[in-house]
Amino acid sequence: MSFESELRAILEKVDGAQAAAIMGFDGIVVADLKSPSFTASYQEIGVEFTRLLKEASKIGQGNDLGGLEEISVTTERFRYVLHVLNPEYFVLLVLSPGASLGKGRYYIKRAAPGIHKEL
Amino acid sequence: MSFESELRAILEKVDGAQAAAIMGFDGIVVADLKSPSFTASYQEIGVEFTRLLKEASKIGQGNDLGGLEEISVTTERFRYVLHVLNPEYFVLLVLSPGASLGKGRYYIKRAAPGIHKEL
Repeated sequence: MSFESELRAILEKVDGAQAAAIMGFDGIVVADLKSPSFTASYQEIGVEFTRLLKEASKIGQGNDLGGLEEISVTTERFRYVLHVLNPEYFVLLVLSPGASLGKGRYYIKRAAPGIHKEL
Repeated sequence: MSFESELRAILEKVDGAQAAAIMGFDGIVVADLKSPSFTASYQEIGVEFTRLLKEASKIGQGNDLGGLEEISVTTERFRYVLHVLNPEYFVLLVLSPGASLGKGRYYIKRAAPGIHKEL
């Protein structure tokens, strides 16, 4: 499957999913898909979350917490899942506030091996 | 209920919960409980996660994502839920890798109003 098909599979399975992207830790978008209703600049968001992932990775290393696998963030307006694929790439999933984080995490995890294989 | 009773209620309800704490954004522990098997210095972890929460709060403000409510972090060795109570305090819940993040998030959310009232 192409990156886009993998992302589409996630967006279609998770109610309330607004956008999904494969991004590098350098902030560059490898592939992305978004629903027409999603108008935020998630590329900019991605760069900011790259910083968050890097910060969280550092914490893990310093305290022997094991490698970072995933971060979920809930704000008043959005939910995000950031799933680390390898030290260079991650998947970003943007959900609406009522959407199920658990479902989002599940379908990213299911798609991750396929995406990882093509990177 | 006291802070300790609120934390105990969370630890008892969530299988795999190892430690729970009410912390200030200044890194100071207001109240905490941990299982005997939990040996990591979670106070130190708490300080590191305070930094993560502050970083994530900034992202929300800059991009109009709405106020930060919660972050979950999964590493190879632990899972954490950080639930913001108000601009000064948050609840930290530490889970073992197999534990349910969803359950952890649910019981923190249930306890939050009670904790908030006593702060």
